Amino acid sequence: MGNLLTMGDLSAEEIKKILADANNFSKDEGWAPNQSAFIANLFFEPSTRTKSSFEMAERKLGLQVIPFEANTSSVLKGETLYDTVKTLQSIGLSAVVIRHEKDRYFDELSNINIPIINGGDGCGHHPTQCLLDLLTIHQEFGSFTDLNIAIIGDILHSRVARSNSEALMRLGANVCFSGPPEWFDRQIIANGSYLPIDEAIQTADVVMLLRIQHERHQEHLQLTKQQYHEQYGLTIAREKSMKPDSIIMHPAPVNRNVEIASALVECGRSRIFKQMENGVYVRMAVLKRALQTPMEREMEYVIID
Amino acid sequence: MGNLLTMGDLSAEEIKKILADANNFSKDEGWAPNQSAFIANLFFEPSTRTKSSFEMAERKLGLQVIPFEANTSSVLKGETLYDTVKTLQSIGLSAVVIRHEKDRYFDELSNINIPIINGGDGCGHHPTQCLLDLLTIHQEFGSFTDLNIAIIGDILHSRVARSNSEALMRLGANVCFSGPPEWFDRQIIANGSYLPIDEAIQTADVVMLLRIQHERHQEHLQLTKQQYHEQYGLTIAREKSMKPDSIIMHPAPVNRNVEIASALVECGRSRIFKQMENGVYVRMAVLKRALQTPMEREMEYVIID
Amino acid sequence: MGNLLTMGDLSAEEIKKILADANNFSKDEGWAPNQSAFIANLFFEPSTRTKSSFEMAERKLGLQVIPFEANTSSVLKGETLYDTVKTLQSIGLSAVVIRHEKDRYFDELSNINIPIINGGDGCGHHPTQCLLDLLTIHQEFGSFTDLNIAIIGDILHSRVARSNSEALMRLGANVCFSGPPEWFDRQIIANGSYLPIDEAIQTADVVMLLRIQHERHQEHLQLTKQQYHEQYGLTIAREKSMKPDSIIMHPAPVNRNVEIASALVECGRSRIFKQMENGVYVRMAVLKRALQTPMEREMEYVIID
Repeated sequence: MGNLLTMGDLSAEEIKKILADANNFSKDEGWAPNQSAFIANLFFEPSTRTKSSFEMAERKLGLQVIPFEANTSSVLKGETLYDTVKTLQSIGLSAVVIRHEKDRYFDELSNINIPIINGGDGCGHHPTQCLLDLLTIHQEFGSFTDLNIAIIGDILHSRVARSNSEALMRLGANVCFSGPPEWFDRQIIANGSYLPIDEAIQTADVVMLLRIQHERHQEHLQLTKQQYHEQYGLTIAREKSMKPDSIIMHPAPVNRNVEIASALVECGRSRIFKQMENGVYVRMAVLKRALQTPMEREMEYVIID
Repeated sequence: MGNLLTMGDLSAEEIKKILADANNFSKDEGWAPNQSAFIANLFFEPSTRTKSSFEMAERKLGLQVIPFEANTSSVLKGETLYDTVKTLQSIGLSAVVIRHEKDRYFDELSNINIPIINGGDGCGHHPTQCLLDLLTIHQEFGSFTDLNIAIIGDILHSRVARSNSEALMRLGANVCFSGPPEWFDRQIIANGSYLPIDEAIQTADVVMLLRIQHERHQEHLQLTKQQYHEQYGLTIAREKSMKPDSIIMHPAPVNRNVEIASALVECGRSRIFKQMENGVYVRMAVLKRALQTPMEREMEYVIID
Repeated sequence: MGNLLTMGDLSAEEIKKILADANNFSKDEGWAPNQSAFIANLFFEPSTRTKSSFEMAERKLGLQVIPFEANTSSVLKGETLYDTVKTLQSIGLSAVVIRHEKDRYFDELSNINIPIINGGDGCGHHPTQCLLDLLTIHQEFGSFTDLNIAIIGDILHSRVARSNSEALMRLGANVCFSGPPEWFDRQIIANGSYLPIDEAIQTADVVMLLRIQHERHQEHLQLTKQQYHEQYGLTIAREKSMKPDSIIMHPAPVNRNVEIASALVECGRSRIFKQMENGVYVRMAVLKRALQTPMEREMEYVIID
């Protein structure tokens, strides 16, 4: 099945296949399912870029998108997520994209028989964000081996930190973390290493800033926005200390002048809007993987070999 | 005109024509209007399955769907339903589907010149739900004559009970009702007969459970969910007493372990998700009826004769 | 670039070109961009007719519409309008339509590189409403020269009053204003002239009523709805005093029996629903202007000359 729930579902081989497909889509290569395909995007949390990006990817593949609005659905009448998705399967959908505030919401969907693509679960996973980050890095450096990636900020609440660090290390990169100690997740940290903020920025090939998830914090950090920016943000001064070819990434939406100085959002090193563009190509590749028949998939691998 | 407001709008002949068309659509037969057609779904109440089902049906017929969200429309500025629908007619829509909390909202729309398809009015009618129930029963038994249908539960607040009982009796079935006496509607009851819950379930060919409309109740029933389930629900024990070939139906969303034991929702007798699938085919047939020209409609009847 | 932010962006020549194109679209003439085009409608204020009208225009031109709901977007996470629009540009949109409650919201979007079509800004501008009014008047009278236009009502809060009066005077019409003195805008008034209500209605070729913007008023007028209707509304008696061929217009949604007697909304002189129909054609023309290449645009002018 073409589910994509966590990056752990994908072998390194499969990740490379998706990146190769995405790269082809970025060069206007086409693909379409061999019969009409219908899809819905179930977003139970606010989103502009992930939802729009999936919508765009779906239309570029010629899919029919059935609108779904969580706040006018029968979820309001107490319907379970399982019954909602099973309903959509029953009316003939080919696949669903889901974003949900609950960690691992997909565990209760194991009896669903159409592909599920995870658009983000709670503080858990966000595999298409990870894939678009990988594509952006690969476009820049041509490889992951021995690259230094610094992931900085709200590691504890970040779906991005978790998905990205695991995948990057599997692909051969070195990952270090930085940011406020209150936001360290021991498990994540155990997989990489910690560096003070200035050293992290000076040695990184990729400075990957995380969004402060104001909407997820139950406990508050004892810092004003300005203090956060000075202590842990990418200030104009710190940007000057970066290596000549290193790049800046951020999953967005950006809190300007908190994680990053507003003037740097569109600077020469920034790949922030490039990441968004790449999101469409990566999602096209993930949707293709979900919708192609097993025989189609197998034949493609033969061609590659 | 191709309005469908209540089941009373349809002769037995017309019902059979819609079911035959729906059956053809279920076998992937196609139909498309002879020029571009534009439609909008005006849902003033929450819905997953009815709205998604119409959206799916519309796309399968190649219609263009113009999005309409009640909670961001000029209804918020106090615009009347008539002016809203007249606006949509003026901008060129070919037909509208409407769900509204007001009983017989369509009475104020008699000057509208495009077909109106009722997706549910208050505690009144829900003709496409009725038609999909009829299709599901007809698929199973090949006829309605002398079938025993038990409609169980919240009869008073149910659009389904009203539409279904009238249509089923017209088509030759026997309808009985069961459930809490507080929820009997004398007028509905007058058309059928009452049976105690165990007898109703043992004698029925079709056990049609109704959803408890928590969101419509002004008065509350003096029963916990568990008490309701034991006294009036389809428990695992009661299911065992059903006749060998009888089936279970429910308009959904299901309150699991209230109207029906959770384990029975997808059991062998359950047609609950089959009903949802059939909803798409029935709505395709109703949309075809709304959009075909009078001459097209007449020619089809000639062919049938 | 094909931006349309205010009527001031358009020369009289360009206005006439748009009206000519709209007129052609009204006669079922087609046009499509020379490659797939993707568009989004960003409505940060409630709307039925403007939003539906753009959606309809977009589909008639074969554009792909990417859904955007302000109330489920990252705007809720504090994202700026600039970052939201830049995101949509990054994922590959060809143009955006925006309605926003802030006057001149578009001033902060000057670095956006895709066309922006203003669907209404605060109490500022609403150029496509103005163009549809112009088309409706031109269809009726064949010219603007020396026509008497009476704009009546809530001039102070009206985007329509501002856009329309400027454009109409540029095109050769005479504009007068009437209504409650509390709602006069000295700047607008300076451009035309004031007439008492009965005289305005008796001398006008076009009686253009404005909607009372209940949702924008911070100060309240000291009049009941009935008093407003009697003092400043188009009553049944006042309609009888209109010149034989003069027409009634209103941007809608109408407050029935306030700005206009309910019985007059669909009377023989009323062009209120005709305006809505024309809205689709005008928006098709504006979208064409936004999406055609500079060379296409230039070639069309050569053909016209």
